[in-house]
Formats: sequence, C-alpha cells, structure tokens
Amino acid sequence: MNKAKGQKGQTPIGEIGKFGLISRITRNASVNNKTTVSGVGDDASVIDSGGLLTLVSTDLLLEGIHFNLVYTPLKHLGYKAVIRAISDIYAMNGTPEQILVAIGISSRFSVENIDELYRGIYLACCKYKVDLAGGDTSSSLTGLTISVTAAGSVESDLICRRNGAQPNDLICVTGNFGASFMGLRILERERKLFEKDKSFEPSLTGYEYVIGKQLKPEFPSEIIDDLRKAGILPSAMIDVSDGLASDLMHICKLSNTGCRIFSNRIPVHDETRKASEEFLTDPLLPALNGGEDYELLFTVALENSEKLKAVPAVKIIGHLTASDQGYILAGDDGSAVELKAQGWEKTK
Amino acid sequence: MNKAKGQKGQTPIGEIGKFGLISRITRNASVNNKTTVSGVGDDASVIDSGGLLTLVSTDLLLEGIHFNLVYTPLKHLGYKAVIRAISDIYAMNGTPEQILVAIGISSRFSVENIDELYRGIYLACCKYKVDLAGGDTSSSLTGLTISVTAAGSVESDLICRRNGAQPNDLICVTGNFGASFMGLRILERERKLFEKDKSFEPSLTGYEYVIGKQLKPEFPSEIIDDLRKAGILPSAMIDVSDGLASDLMHICKLSNTGCRIFSNRIPVHDETRKASEEFLTDPLLPALNGGEDYELLFTVALENSEKLKAVPAVKIIGHLTASDQGYILAGDDGSAVELKAQGWEKTK
Repeated sequence: MNKAKGQKGQTPIGEIGKFGLISRITRNASVNNKTTVSGVGDDASVIDSGGLLTLVSTDLLLEGIHFNLVYTPLKHLGYKAVIRAISDIYAMNGTPEQILVAIGISSRFSVENIDELYRGIYLACCKYKVDLAGGDTSSSLTGLTISVTAAGSVESDLICRRNGAQPNDLICVTGNFGASFMGLRILERERKLFEKDKSFEPSLTGYEYVIGKQLKPEFPSEIIDDLRKAGILPSAMIDVSDGLASDLMHICKLSNTGCRIFSNRIPVHDETRKASEEFLTDPLLPALNGGEDYELLFTVALENSEKLKAVPAVKIIGHLTASDQGYILAGDDGSAVELKAQGWEKTK
Repeated sequence: MNKAKGQKGQTPIGEIGKFGLISRITRNASVNNKTTVSGVGDDASVIDSGGLLTLVSTDLLLEGIHFNLVYTPLKHLGYKAVIRAISDIYAMNGTPEQILVAIGISSRFSVENIDELYRGIYLACCKYKVDLAGGDTSSSLTGLTISVTAAGSVESDLICRRNGAQPNDLICVTGNFGASFMGLRILERERKLFEKDKSFEPSLTGYEYVIGKQLKPEFPSEIIDDLRKAGILPSAMIDVSDGLASDLMHICKLSNTGCRIFSNRIPVHDETRKASEEFLTDPLLPALNGGEDYELLFTVALENSEKLKAVPAVKIIGHLTASDQGYILAGDDGSAVELKAQGWEKTK
C-alpha cells in the first residue's frame, strides 16, 4: 500500500507553476515516429500521414476549476468546451473537422442534463462545421469532467506555429480582451450574494456582453479565411486562452524575440471598462492577464501592413523586437513597464 | 442562477446505462467533413487527410472510478493510461504513433508525484514506440484526472472495424480473461484490511500475475504484426476493455450477427481460477464480464483457419452465427445459455 502523499522532500506544484510543470514533464519527450511532425510546445500536435497535415489538440474542463454550474447553463458549457478545443486548431491556421468528447458524470446529473450539455456541443459543431466523431463516457465521484479532443487539417505550407516570428513583425489581435474575465467576476459576485440569500435576484443587466464572452464565447474563425483571402500568412499564431500577455510571451519565447505593445492599442470593450471601474481595477489588468478571451493573436511581417487593411477586424497592438529588448508594455505617457505573464499561475 | 439538479421528470443515468447514454448522445451525430471517414461507434475515429488514414481515440481516467491510489503506484498508472489509449488504435489494426495527455491535479500531488506518473507514461511510450506529442495541465479540486488521446495510422485497405464480421467467421482472442478483475478484487480485499488496521501487511504472494494484469497491463501488439505476416485480415476487431461478453456483443450488434462461444475454450489463467475459488466465484464470470483485459478480440473468415496456425498465441473461442441465433455461451455439458453484457453497467 502506498504511503500518504505530502512527505518531506516533495515540491508543491504551485512552486513551479503550470508552465514550469509543463517544461518538466515534457523535457524527456522525443520524437520516434516519422508521422510526428511536431510534438509538445504548440497549440496542437502535428501529424503527417502523407496528405494534409493532421492537427490534434486536447483540453480538460473540470467542475469547480473551469466552470461553476451555479451560473453556467449546461448547454453553454457544452458549446464553450467545443470552442475551447477547436480554437487550438484554428491557432495553427488549420480547419477543425472532428471532435472527440469524453465525459465523467456523477450521479447528480440526469439524462436530461447530459442532453442539454450535448445540445450545446452539437450547436457549436453545427456552427463551426465540425463532426462529433468519438469519445468516452464514465461515471465520476466528483462532479462533471469534460475532455474535448479536436482534430483538423492544414496544408503543410500554411501551418502557423508559435516559433516562426521575427523581430519587427507586427503583433496583431482580433476582438477585445478582458471581457470574459470581467464577466466571470460579475457572475461570481452575484453568485456569492445569491448563496447568502436564495431569494436574491442576480442583477446582470448592462453586462450582457462580458457575461456572454464568459459563458458562450465564439471564436473569430472567419479571420482565418479573411487572412488567406488577403494573402497574409502569419509568421506565428496562438489563440488567447491563458491571457494576452502570457500568450504573447509564448510566441516571443519560442521565436526568441522580445516585444513592445502599446497600452492604448489593446482593444477593450466598453462593458469591460465599466465592470473594471466597478471593481476598482485598471481594465488593462483583465485585458492582459484575464484569459479565456478565445481571440487570435498573431504576428505578420512588416511588409504585410498594407494587406492587413483588407481585414479591418484585425488590430495592430505593437511589434516584436530583438530578444534582448525584453517584453515591454508602453504606456500613453511614454512609460515602459515589463510585461508579466500571470494567467493560470496567478489564480492557482 | 440554475435550479438545483434532481428535479422531477429527470431520468437517472443508471436507468439507461452507459451504452444507452452513448446511443442517446450520438443519435444526432452527422458527418459534414469529407475527412471524417467514420465517426462514433468504433474503437477510434477515422480521419482521411489524403494519405494513410489517421485514427484518433480518447479515454478518461478518474480517481476513485478507474484507479485507487492506495494500491496503484503512479508510475504504473501512467503506464496503464497509455496502454488503455493505444489499445483502441491497435483494435482498428492501426499503429499508434502519438499520445496527448491532459491531467487535472489537486494540491495533494507534488511535483515528484507527477514525475512518477510521467515516468510510467514515458516507459509505455518507449516500449510501444509512441510519441508524447501534446496535452494540457490543470489544477483540480478533487484528485487526479487523466485524459489520454491516442493517434495512429493505418492503410485504408487494412483497417478493421467492428462492423465487418459475417456469420460463420471464427471468433479469436489473445491472452486470457478475467485476470485483471480478480487482481482488482484481491487488491480491494487487502486495501479494506489495511484500512481497518494500518499495521496490516497486505498478502499479495501467489497473485503476482493477476495483480500485474490489473496494475500494469501490456497490450499484445505483436499479434497485429503476426496476423499481417500470416496474411490474415480480421473481418472485425475490438480491444477487450468492457469485458469479453460485452465487447463481443459490440461486434455482433454492429455486424448484425449472432455468436456462439464455448465456455471451455475461453482462456483463463490459473491464478484467475485460484482467486475465483477464493471468492467462491465461477472463473467464467470475471472472464466474460470483468473487463480491463486489454486483449484483442477479432473475427476471421473460416478460410483463414489454416493460416491461424502460424499465430499460435491466438485462440479460437467460437464462431459467429446468423443474427436470429442470439448470443450463446455453450457449456461443456451441451447446455446453451444466453450471453449477457454486464461490463460497466453491472458496476454502476
């Protein structure tokens, strides 16, 4: 029988953080199969079976960590689980085509509850034209667990990795940032009030946008098409899930560059500003570190700047620099501070 | 805020069982992408990107449901998680090549614990020549969750599905059945004694084989090669994870056949018999319904019976029949009883 955990000489995972743990568990990864084009370290794994490249990515959603069913309708949860998974395929400039969904279900869920979850899954499949192609079901002792694997394809000359960026490339984004995080803060605030007093009517009016971004996000898949039509191939691309700062730094680290972004260029929705004011927070904080934005962050060579005008939904927020220039956030007032990745590590 | 679960008009999942739930949640699955060769209903999803077919499968392992860390070393758990995932790829006559591992970890796990888990994962990767090619890490409120996605490839003319079998095909198996389940029963018995009295020394001597099958199973991947060398292409194939009876009935249902297997032909290890006697159980029960055997079950056309001699590790346990003949277990004494799938549903 195994000894109890928590012995002397054991390192708490919080001490090395999510990214430290990932580095540690992948340091021995080696590639033995010729179909394995690239392994760990990007949005999706790349498999070459002789035709188009196949992209595969997997994500885990755990009750109490990734979602709270007090305010998350199961249908929205199913929808978001799909968005989360397919965004990794889009981030490689691929087209998601299949998902596999494995669920662990505790006895407090009914057949009708699971129907609702799958209603959301199918709705996202329909909207993003992906096929539910497999999965697994299991009982669970402790609530709902959802694992979604997404697969897709991309032509080998169109694949966008995290490591292809160069100094002077423009840093581009879609949509806006921080909304999902502020939506979550509002939902959490109302939940706490509701749990103190069950007759309390949550007041969500005026926050429909940020709450929508949290509960039922969409992914700007049309931008992938628009960039192709405009003849733009990003030098690096990532989906923003950990937070804008953290995900930008993933590109910089893997491409061996620095970066300089401008605080007044970072798109923030009016509701995100309004909610931030209510919580006495600078809206830049959720925008840089909130996460779950499900937007695209990519870099393009400077010579594409004219072509970018054909894709007006894309905003340029800065540029890459030599690696010795660090990761810089430039303020309106000429100030320059170092960007810090917080993301998951902050909330651990 | 959502209403509490467990309202009137809700159907407990136990009422329709695992397979009922799978039928229900996949009834609306449709195929929209030409790369989706086949979706739900087989061991793995089949993706055609223009070269070899890509096979993808995903499995979820939840603490307390699939494993108990009191007697499961983390290294063995990592190893078994890989076996479990790649067995689905082998079962389509494919070669597993990549795995993606997503883990949810609660705070009671240390960095060193996760190192141990990955030591087992890498050991299995090395032995079965698969690459760890991606994944996800997350914190968890409630113990350890492991999701393993396996990918692999197969030539399109060599793929083995569950639905290709014909009446009169021979039913073949590798290895033996029921050992893993009896190993689990012994471990559980010793755990209960240990939990009553922490100074108790578990007595596992004499049960090394069945405990090994439970804690660190291997998959008979060499049989896939041997069958190819012998010029045998199974008409249907599945890995035995739910239980021999249940998995055989999957083939029968999807191939629209009946079956007749012979109780004296079902391979059972001596330790499985010995353990069954101790628990006053007929060893056929764990052999038919225990599950987690990680053996191959396949059917071949009758004309392959000569060729099968070149693969002596394969045993013939019966044959398929017309669908109106039902699922029959024939006893030594000429008796014939109806096979029942129990598997997961039994233990719900």
